[in-house]
Amino acid sequence: MSEDSNRSSHQKVSFAAPRGFGTTLKSDLKETFFPDDPLKRLENVKALGKVKKALEYFVPIFEWLPKYNFRTLRYDLLAGLTITSLAIPQGISYAKLAQIPPIIGLYSSFVPPLIYAVLGDSKYLAVGNVAACSLLICQQIGEVVSPKNDPTLYLHLVFTATFVTGVMQTLMGVLRLGILVDFLSHSTIIGFMGGTAIIICLQQLKGILGLQNFTTKTDVVAVLISVFEHKKEWHWQSAVAGIVFLIFLQITKFIKDKKPKLFWVSAMSPLVVVVVGCVYAYFGHADKHGIPIVGDLEKGINPLSIHYLTFDKRYFPAALKAGCITGLIALAEGIAVGRSFAIMRNEQVDGNKEMIAYGIMNIMGSFTSCYLTTGPFSKTAVNYSAGAKTAMSNAVMSLFMVLVLLLMAPLFSYTPLVALSAIIVSAMLGLIKYEEAFELFKVDKFDFCVCMTAFIGVVFLSMKMGLILSVGLSLVRALLYVARPGTCKLGKLPDSVLYRDLEQYPDGTKHSGILVLQIGSPIYYANGNYVRERIWRWIRDEQSSTADSEGDVEHVLLELSGVITIDMAGIETLSEINKTLSGKGIKLGLINPRIKVMEKMTASHFLDKIGKENVFLSIDEAIETCRFSLQLSRERNDSLPQHSGDAV
Amino acid sequence: MSEDSNRSSHQKVSFAAPRGFGTTLKSDLKETFFPDDPLKRLENVKALGKVKKALEYFVPIFEWLPKYNFRTLRYDLLAGLTITSLAIPQGISYAKLAQIPPIIGLYSSFVPPLIYAVLGDSKYLAVGNVAACSLLICQQIGEVVSPKNDPTLYLHLVFTATFVTGVMQTLMGVLRLGILVDFLSHSTIIGFMGGTAIIICLQQLKGILGLQNFTTKTDVVAVLISVFEHKKEWHWQSAVAGIVFLIFLQITKFIKDKKPKLFWVSAMSPLVVVVVGCVYAYFGHADKHGIPIVGDLEKGINPLSIHYLTFDKRYFPAALKAGCITGLIALAEGIAVGRSFAIMRNEQVDGNKEMIAYGIMNIMGSFTSCYLTTGPFSKTAVNYSAGAKTAMSNAVMSLFMVLVLLLMAPLFSYTPLVALSAIIVSAMLGLIKYEEAFELFKVDKFDFCVCMTAFIGVVFLSMKMGLILSVGLSLVRALLYVARPGTCKLGKLPDSVLYRDLEQYPDGTKHSGILVLQIGSPIYYANGNYVRERIWRWIRDEQSSTADSEGDVEHVLLELSGVITIDMAGIETLSEINKTLSGKGIKLGLINPRIKVMEKMTASHFLDKIGKENVFLSIDEAIETCRFSLQLSRERNDSLPQHSGDAV
Repeated sequence: MSEDSNRSSHQKVSFAAPRGFGTTLKSDLKETFFPDDPLKRLENVKALGKVKKALEYFVPIFEWLPKYNFRTLRYDLLAGLTITSLAIPQGISYAKLAQIPPIIGLYSSFVPPLIYAVLGDSKYLAVGNVAACSLLICQQIGEVVSPKNDPTLYLHLVFTATFVTGVMQTLMGVLRLGILVDFLSHSTIIGFMGGTAIIICLQQLKGILGLQNFTTKTDVVAVLISVFEHKKEWHWQSAVAGIVFLIFLQITKFIKDKKPKLFWVSAMSPLVVVVVGCVYAYFGHADKHGIPIVGDLEKGINPLSIHYLTFDKRYFPAALKAGCITGLIALAEGIAVGRSFAIMRNEQVDGNKEMIAYGIMNIMGSFTSCYLTTGPFSKTAVNYSAGAKTAMSNAVMSLFMVLVLLLMAPLFSYTPLVALSAIIVSAMLGLIKYEEAFELFKVDKFDFCVCMTAFIGVVFLSMKMGLILSVGLSLVRALLYVARPGTCKLGKLPDSVLYRDLEQYPDGTKHSGILVLQIGSPIYYANGNYVRERIWRWIRDEQSSTADSEGDVEHVLLELSGVITIDMAGIETLSEINKTLSGKGIKLGLINPRIKVMEKMTASHFLDKIGKENVFLSIDEAIETCRFSLQLSRERNDSLPQHSGDAV
Repeated sequence: MSEDSNRSSHQKVSFAAPRGFGTTLKSDLKETFFPDDPLKRLENVKALGKVKKALEYFVPIFEWLPKYNFRTLRYDLLAGLTITSLAIPQGISYAKLAQIPPIIGLYSSFVPPLIYAVLGDSKYLAVGNVAACSLLICQQIGEVVSPKNDPTLYLHLVFTATFVTGVMQTLMGVLRLGILVDFLSHSTIIGFMGGTAIIICLQQLKGILGLQNFTTKTDVVAVLISVFEHKKEWHWQSAVAGIVFLIFLQITKFIKDKKPKLFWVSAMSPLVVVVVGCVYAYFGHADKHGIPIVGDLEKGINPLSIHYLTFDKRYFPAALKAGCITGLIALAEGIAVGRSFAIMRNEQVDGNKEMIAYGIMNIMGSFTSCYLTTGPFSKTAVNYSAGAKTAMSNAVMSLFMVLVLLLMAPLFSYTPLVALSAIIVSAMLGLIKYEEAFELFKVDKFDFCVCMTAFIGVVFLSMKMGLILSVGLSLVRALLYVARPGTCKLGKLPDSVLYRDLEQYPDGTKHSGILVLQIGSPIYYANGNYVRERIWRWIRDEQSSTADSEGDVEHVLLELSGVITIDMAGIETLSEINKTLSGKGIKLGLINPRIKVMEKMTASHFLDKIGKENVFLSIDEAIETCRFSLQLSRERNDSLPQHSGDAV
């Protein structure tokens, strides 16, 4: 830029007066809660149009239903049928996992999908229960009420927790608090899911070995001990059946991986396992040979459960905790799933809309004997590969589910528990993402630690602890960033006009006596001391690296283009630096302060302290100015050489 | 830069292979814990020199004592005498505040200052007790042991807490954990100190009104209630004396503010008050007229107290908590004070060295009947204005204190409590920093909230709660920054070559079809969604702002100079953006990724996805390239105009 500096110096730094508090607050709030600016669409539209637009925005079905045609319906029908076949076994299994009546699992695939079809923003998401949350609910509520001794109260608390989840998710959507979900990092989710998969698999040893008594704890050690404590309860028949089922399921998965076109093979396989299991159990009287079955599943659709919600202060806290934790995890998983499938088709999903959809669907669910539902990955993947085109596939699923509930529910009462266990295990095995963890290890060791913390925490302590530890670790990383923003020394690249990090571009050159430092963002209370210390070190290193007094640093230029914001402590840091530097006969210059920084510098009168003439728009402009004053000081130095001493 | 772009394009982007894990880890750890690079001084020095240098570094007295001469001693003697005169009344008062025998306050001005003189890094810091911590200790330990019912155990726990503080501070210094203190923001301290001052003043109503029974609570409401409950205990004599003393003290302060040269007037005044009080009490038998006095103060120097340290598991936790909290506050105050006075003389203070000094001084203190000491502002200010030149003034103070302890301690046993109360109140009134709070309000509303949270929390809830809430709020701010890094649209400034934020420099111009966005740092898991949403919004706004298809965005350039680091989620965000953009026929270009970003992009093969040809070293280079491909696409557009449609 050097030869342009005279031109660029025409361009003055903008010392505009700080914007009003209202303005800044408004823009900050907008950045924080409305980064996607949802109301934009409503601008320059007539009143009626506004209403229509708004309705389309808040209730997506109004957006796509009008354009809906039978060609798309064909696809959605097929997809709906496929996910129903998955929903039946999964529903029963996960309900068992949550230690609630299996029929609840089927109920949960009727109402919530219907609501999601109306409100949901994702085209490919398939609504259903998830294993991790089912187990977590069971753990949390099991702490206050035992599902064995008081199943009714326990069930009511599960409904209450679902209600809490729904309210929380709706509120988060309305208050645009997606930001909270953002802090649940992907690395955490990977580790958490992996760990959960492991402990859930171990839990299934109960079903596979046909045990009667089993620990309620989930950590590996406790589970294994309890398995071997009840050696004499093991039933080889059950075990054999379980292993056969498992092998069958894994083979179908293998087929799908080899030939993606045959995805339906693995999609149908759980249902096949259930049916085979039922037939075998019915004719072989399996329950007499130590292979317990699910038992009573009545006909009929969801009974109302709104009057079961209990806010008794003895139990509600547990439901509240359970609802919030599972709600957050469900959101994190559901939104991530919806988003990742949308991206495959270059589409977008509005996180906040999704949250509201999930919320209302769970509230309604808790009124109609359903428990926590979200968008599970496996089901959504099937829905997607089955060719679903819109949320209609969810509506289709719930219609099929009604038929199942009305006509054939009792048939499934013969399902052997071992079949369910096999289904769960094979589903869980898919959730352990070795390669993703390895990718983390390769690219970002810290992310890997976060992931492993969640994994190990879940496996050896408890799901909650694993989650908390891992989230805490990610927070520490975020705070560490704020506490230690990177600074670097800039040099001019040969035969070019660019100033770049000398560590990255070692062939850069420096002007003797001028030190250009790029400061990282932000300059906050947490890093004021660091920034000061670090700048000192740069200066010391510079001094020591240049033997002759010519090399004494006389100008320090701070490149602030990257500094987006600064707080009061940051301003104080800058003025301390300025004071101490001038004490050592070094001049401080600031380059291109951003708007927020400039505003604070003006408001705090730091700008007057340092002098507007020492604020530059570009590095080159600054360098030019410094060079000039350097020549003067050099001449001074020759007259009074002892000066160079106290610049150290 | 435009006409240089052909030249600057000679300069290639550095695609150097990622540095080894060891290297990066080492540099990260160094940045985190050794920003000041303390071992630098030991480089290229001979073995013996190394030892000497190291000794000088770790034990500052070795650095300044050799150069010490009698001229400086004169100053330090005077300063030492002055702060002693302050140390006696303050020691007794604050000991009373902590509800421990007043003599402990005098002891605390003997051993700790001596140790600080050897290890301390600040020249002007004067060691002593602080009111806030005294009260906080009393609160924390009072929770488990009542100072009234079991004074001995209570005292031993105070020693134990002091020991804990010492150990914690030493460890923090050795482990270079100054970073923890950094998170105690200045705004928090202002608010905390202000609030503490208020409640301490209210506490003094007990002494001034000569009450016998008083609440142990500290919040305003409880204190006022208890004051008016005991109306009949009020003693007008005591009140009158208190008000007289207070007026006297405030007048001396006023004199100091008017004529800084007369600082010694206010420095001596507390001692005057005490002496006057003693004389009056001795001859006027004040205790018979409802003016209680301090009572027994034996001759003799500090007895050993190391055998009193109690680690009984019933009481230790309380001591541990008290020690840690007070220790952190003491550090924050002491280091801040030392630093601010050093800056007045363009000198530096090494925070980590200070921590070790404080730590050892408190450990030794706890062995010799002293309680928590640090560098109080008031005392240090006096020391500074009394002309102290080195830490020697602390040594002088402790020598004078020995004389006091050996010869005249008993005389002070006649000190009326009301005199102490007056001294405390007038000291506290100086700690309420209205103007600083107002400055915060003007410059940074959020900092002001943090400050007020601490203040109100302390005044109406409890000191601990106020501290916790305020620190929590500052952490939220730090996290919000990471979750919402600023992004902005860049434009080229007229008759210049600089690209700057269009909000700040509205007269900047854009190339139609090319959108240049500057992304804030870091790109982390917590802001991935935000960054994606935000970039979308920029594109949408751009599209809508330009009516004609000419304006369709075909190139999005992300200026990454400010992005210092990125994590796995950030990389995924970038590749999602890339994928979706290309789906819409928009090309993505990256400008000047920094070294850490480049490394992660390489390791994750994102670089291969986006293609090295789309990574540029300067905005100009990128613009040039885009312009060229734009011309091509324009020609294409003319041939197939419907293309411009799907770029929306």
